Amino acid sequence: MLVPFAGLQVTQRCKPAAAQLQRPAQLPVARAQRCLAVMASESLANGTATDERVEALRKAMKEAGVDAYIVPSEDAHMSEYAPDCDARRQFISRFTGSAGTAVVTATAAALWTDGRYFLQASQQLGPAWTLMRGGSPGCPDIPEWLASNVPEGGRVGIDPFVHTVDNAVALDKKLSSAGRALAPLLTGNLVDAVWGTERPPPPAALLRVHRLEHAGESVASKVARMRKDMAGVGTGALLATALDEVAWLLNLRGGDVPYNPVFVSYVLLTTDTAALYVDAAKVTEDAKAHLEEAGVAVKPYDALLADVRALAAAGTKIWADPAKVSYAIHRAACEALAEAEEPKSPRGKRNSTPRKRPRRESGASEASAAETEPGTSAERRAERLFVALPSPVAAAKALKNEAELAGMREAHLRDAVALAETFVWLEQQVAAGAALTEVGVDEYLTGRRAAQPGFVEPSFPTIAGAGANGAIIHYRAQPEGCAGVDGETLLLVDSGGQYDCGTTDVTRTFHLGEPSAYQRECFTRVLQGHIALDSAVFPEGTPGLALDTLARAPLWSVGLNYRHGTGHGVGAALNVHEGPQSISARWHNHTPLEAGMVVSNEPGYYEDGAFGIRIENLLVIREEPTPHRFGGQAFLGFERLTLCALQRKMIALELLSDRELAWVDAYHAQVWGAVSPRLDGRDDALEWLRTHTAPLPARAPKAAAPAPPPVAAAPAVAVA
Amino acid sequence: MLVPFAGLQVTQRCKPAAAQLQRPAQLPVARAQRCLAVMASESLANGTATDERVEALRKAMKEAGVDAYIVPSEDAHMSEYAPDCDARRQFISRFTGSAGTAVVTATAAALWTDGRYFLQASQQLGPAWTLMRGGSPGCPDIPEWLASNVPEGGRVGIDPFVHTVDNAVALDKKLSSAGRALAPLLTGNLVDAVWGTERPPPPAALLRVHRLEHAGESVASKVARMRKDMAGVGTGALLATALDEVAWLLNLRGGDVPYNPVFVSYVLLTTDTAALYVDAAKVTEDAKAHLEEAGVAVKPYDALLADVRALAAAGTKIWADPAKVSYAIHRAACEALAEAEEPKSPRGKRNSTPRKRPRRESGASEASAAETEPGTSAERRAERLFVALPSPVAAAKALKNEAELAGMREAHLRDAVALAETFVWLEQQVAAGAALTEVGVDEYLTGRRAAQPGFVEPSFPTIAGAGANGAIIHYRAQPEGCAGVDGETLLLVDSGGQYDCGTTDVTRTFHLGEPSAYQRECFTRVLQGHIALDSAVFPEGTPGLALDTLARAPLWSVGLNYRHGTGHGVGAALNVHEGPQSISARWHNHTPLEAGMVVSNEPGYYEDGAFGIRIENLLVIREEPTPHRFGGQAFLGFERLTLCALQRKMIALELLSDRELAWVDAYHAQVWGAVSPRLDGRDDALEWLRTHTAPLPARAPKAAAPAPPPVAAAPAVAVA
Repeated sequence: MLVPFAGLQVTQRCKPAAAQLQRPAQLPVARAQRCLAVMASESLANGTATDERVEALRKAMKEAGVDAYIVPSEDAHMSEYAPDCDARRQFISRFTGSAGTAVVTATAAALWTDGRYFLQASQQLGPAWTLMRGGSPGCPDIPEWLASNVPEGGRVGIDPFVHTVDNAVALDKKLSSAGRALAPLLTGNLVDAVWGTERPPPPAALLRVHRLEHAGESVASKVARMRKDMAGVGTGALLATALDEVAWLLNLRGGDVPYNPVFVSYVLLTTDTAALYVDAAKVTEDAKAHLEEAGVAVKPYDALLADVRALAAAGTKIWADPAKVSYAIHRAACEALAEAEEPKSPRGKRNSTPRKRPRRESGASEASAAETEPGTSAERRAERLFVALPSPVAAAKALKNEAELAGMREAHLRDAVALAETFVWLEQQVAAGAALTEVGVDEYLTGRRAAQPGFVEPSFPTIAGAGANGAIIHYRAQPEGCAGVDGETLLLVDSGGQYDCGTTDVTRTFHLGEPSAYQRECFTRVLQGHIALDSAVFPEGTPGLALDTLARAPLWSVGLNYRHGTGHGVGAALNVHEGPQSISARWHNHTPLEAGMVVSNEPGYYEDGAFGIRIENLLVIREEPTPHRFGGQAFLGFERLTLCALQRKMIALELLSDRELAWVDAYHAQVWGAVSPRLDGRDDALEWLRTHTAPLPARAPKAAAPAPPPVAAAPAVAVA
Repeated sequence: MLVPFAGLQVTQRCKPAAAQLQRPAQLPVARAQRCLAVMASESLANGTATDERVEALRKAMKEAGVDAYIVPSEDAHMSEYAPDCDARRQFISRFTGSAGTAVVTATAAALWTDGRYFLQASQQLGPAWTLMRGGSPGCPDIPEWLASNVPEGGRVGIDPFVHTVDNAVALDKKLSSAGRALAPLLTGNLVDAVWGTERPPPPAALLRVHRLEHAGESVASKVARMRKDMAGVGTGALLATALDEVAWLLNLRGGDVPYNPVFVSYVLLTTDTAALYVDAAKVTEDAKAHLEEAGVAVKPYDALLADVRALAAAGTKIWADPAKVSYAIHRAACEALAEAEEPKSPRGKRNSTPRKRPRRESGASEASAAETEPGTSAERRAERLFVALPSPVAAAKALKNEAELAGMREAHLRDAVALAETFVWLEQQVAAGAALTEVGVDEYLTGRRAAQPGFVEPSFPTIAGAGANGAIIHYRAQPEGCAGVDGETLLLVDSGGQYDCGTTDVTRTFHLGEPSAYQRECFTRVLQGHIALDSAVFPEGTPGLALDTLARAPLWSVGLNYRHGTGHGVGAALNVHEGPQSISARWHNHTPLEAGMVVSNEPGYYEDGAFGIRIENLLVIREEPTPHRFGGQAFLGFERLTLCALQRKMIALELLSDRELAWVDAYHAQVWGAVSPRLDGRDDALEWLRTHTAPLPARAPKAAAPAPPPVAAAPAVAVA
């Protein structure tokens, strides 16, 4: 399942990164001129209609003393999938897309989203709302818009639990340089007050222990590794707020949201304590024993802030990734430290203060320095209090151990059976002229997966897009009105499963009739990009961005491209999207690819209104036994996890090089060898696999190499 | 001529980016742990010996009241090649390498340089010096070292003219957080005082007008474009301090330093004035008339600071790239603004103040805000005063117009003649058993270039490296002790010329006897990378970093690599290295490649102690007529400028794909067609060209595609 360029943080970045791909950096003047362009917004009905939810929010804003209120999509853990009770932006705006930020003032209500959702948002937003087309020329970002829509000196309210530190600090800076103030409200989310009793209850799924057989490392060992990392950067505490980090660290799984087997919680480690903050009702006896054995205390979810405050007041340095941790936690800690320091004598030195502040000018007295810089003292306090580095839990989680990899391989074998069973059924149905739909394909495939041992749930909503629907990158077929599946169009199926031992994510594109030459050319160029990335060998330390071009070059050569990343990290029996690595044009992500990481390889091509093509396998990064090791460095390459045939009729053989042809045959032989034993007795599926994994037919003999361009007659001379 | 990863700014970045290539980003813990590693320094004789230059500098430091003094390589224009009178770091340390920073304290003298120069520096530095091996594990950066070598509260002196704003601000921040203060000394460079009358005089070459025929755009038109850019970002003044920017903007050339046809100067534009700050003695009558016609005033070089101060005092916003402009200019402007504002009433509002400062807290009075934030007022003043964006002159200069491109093409044709003449001579000399040396090759080649019309000088010092010398990336053969050239080893020749109409830069690698199979494999993999980059087609907006991997992938596939960038920008009859674009693993450079830019394509492979291989052509970026234009975007590709045959015997045909073979033949046909008419009557060279550009021999028929790996027997089934 691809990761779109458009991120979730519409609050911070109005322009989705898809536009970045096309113009990743502008010369300064062009950039500046663009800022002057007209606003790309759409007032759905002049913004004058009333909306009772918005009106109720305005009342709450007035009581809270703020002139505007920002409602992002995020929950307190910055989850990709949040529990229903956290779908505040959806509730207030009625827009259900995955990415968007609502902003309400006394007179306006605006929603920012990206190009994937312009149509949907314009249909779902009521007449009180203005749609802000993020990424369109001249679309202001939220702070710019607030500067025009909130009076000078006005206060912009946020719930600091649903904004990251990075996000809130940037917002604060922009607002304050525009003469407006950020007002983090700790008295509860104002949307919850409007939602009232209609708000869904918080999720309450029970915890499951993730068996050591699949986790491959005990909780005690993971905690010890984290403490080593903490010592390495001189910090006394580590806070994990991302739910997949908590689940990985504690070898626990949950069911609080669909698709991601996580549970709403925090973990706080110190050098000698470890605590899980979670609703106690979710902690089964099994989980309790498991945590006790690992020396992890269970505390109420809401107890986190008080414990963070206590650490901060004691001057303990806390490792908290500012791109993931909520501003609420950050502020609570800073305030606790300030309170702990301020009642003391203004120049008293506390042992717990990590480091003396240097004097900038040798002539300035310490007292005057303290008095003259209060404007920045909060920043400096935060610098002293926090280690603002990416989470070491995310980094450790990304590197799969051998047990996790064995589980991932097994999950992919089970998945391969379900895929073969589904695709042979699909061919039979179409051949028989059955009335098939996209939802029907999804249901059958999910059913075949569910028949496999250890299946938990899909790892994301299946994307089954026939014809033009295949070009909608995050399409989800709905029972009412979804397209039929027949022999007339291409069918793109992107799906995955959560198993007890691992997570899968695979995309195949089929034509169940006669594809056009153009469709075959596009498919083949996508395949060439897929092969180029799959075959890449690269020195350790290479970031994923350096490989993205390999997957695009065959499409670029004829002026084609795709507007999404090429590869994302995948968890082991965890979230199907995980960081920190990425293979994409996100040029700012310099995370090196490392042995043990799992990534997707999913180039595509999408012709609006016509068809979509994507070929996706999951890969494990492994050390490659290259004949040389330049500079003593290890070189890395990929091992394929996904085992599913490519549709032969879609491959334009004449476009493939000998090496590419050999790759296809080798991959198909690997699929046959690994999957056929599991299809024993299932004759239809076995025959389908045999047919689809046979060697490609020999090509017509190659034409001679193309003649050189006619710049001049090539000299007719014997070769030296 | 390649750009090494190691930058000039050793002051700011102890670790050269070559190490970055290998590990572009580290997981945080590993990074932190590396910081704790031991110092990688080498005290050449316990640092106790005395050195009269260092002692004299210490005396000057004492008089100036500083505890340390930093001497970087840069001049006031951050030039790659600086005049002799600015070689202060070389004078004080006796180390002559191009990159390095000296730091002297009362008791220590240390020099930072990068891996290219460790050997040379250890030979050249006297016993009073400690060599700091930048980029080695545990090597402290300069601020870290100063924190241990200067007493707390101590002052670290710099000459603010030879540090960029970015560099000095970062240094200031690091020093001040370590409890030491940066002390910019405006009373002259302390090294100059030590140097005294021995210091070379400033350069005094006369200016040359760069003819409109080659420039393609009048000065008035360029100035008008810059004013449009200035208006676009709302600035009233633009300062150009890089010497190639001045030369391009004013269609003038000079001779103040070797290789780069520039002259020591500044340009300051306002909305209605334009001034060149230069030693009047260099301004010929011709240049004077040219400048008058364009409305550009000539002012003394030293008059710049006063004019900048006057602009600042009047509140004029100044566009000055903080990565290029000296800290001295920045500070002078900030001080002038402060002086202009402070004598007035503390709350008086000046029309010239661009924007009111917002109040952070609605309760705080304006007066108290002004009083309580003086610590940051300098920063805020600088923000109000400067537009800190990359120079629009550099951006405009990078996009060559058709006249500049015509001049570049003509320069490459002239160069092609000189190269053919040299390489045929070289083959004849070796065949005849003549006693040839690297310097002899350089001299002959330069002589052939000089025989071409419009030749000015080489565009950089020729790198002619035989055998092991070819592996020394910035090798320069010296008359005494350079290697012989014969049929036993590979010879790498990287050279270029400055012509009236354009600039060239080309590398070819030859074996004048029998290359080994391994050398041919390495050459062929370098060639495959060269071909892949040359053939690339990519959407507009793509930064060069996205193409770097194409040139490396064939080497990576067998565990080989090279420790330099793949491509740099090239000026038109200007500096052979120019920005802002780059094709390299400098992941932070997101400048898009644009039509009209000239870049080099120069992958290589270097086997320490054995041989070096590099294949370099210059390319122009042009729009590519692709069959499709995804998303309405233009796609770009490359036009080759360099016209010189590749040595056929070095190509391992069996490694090349059909497409690569066709590329070589097409390129050779292009070379023959373009260059052969210019060799009319020069029979030897013409015959050499004919032989070397003939089509490659047919390969042996291809073996069948490799069998799939033996994971399982491929199913023996008829193809669907």
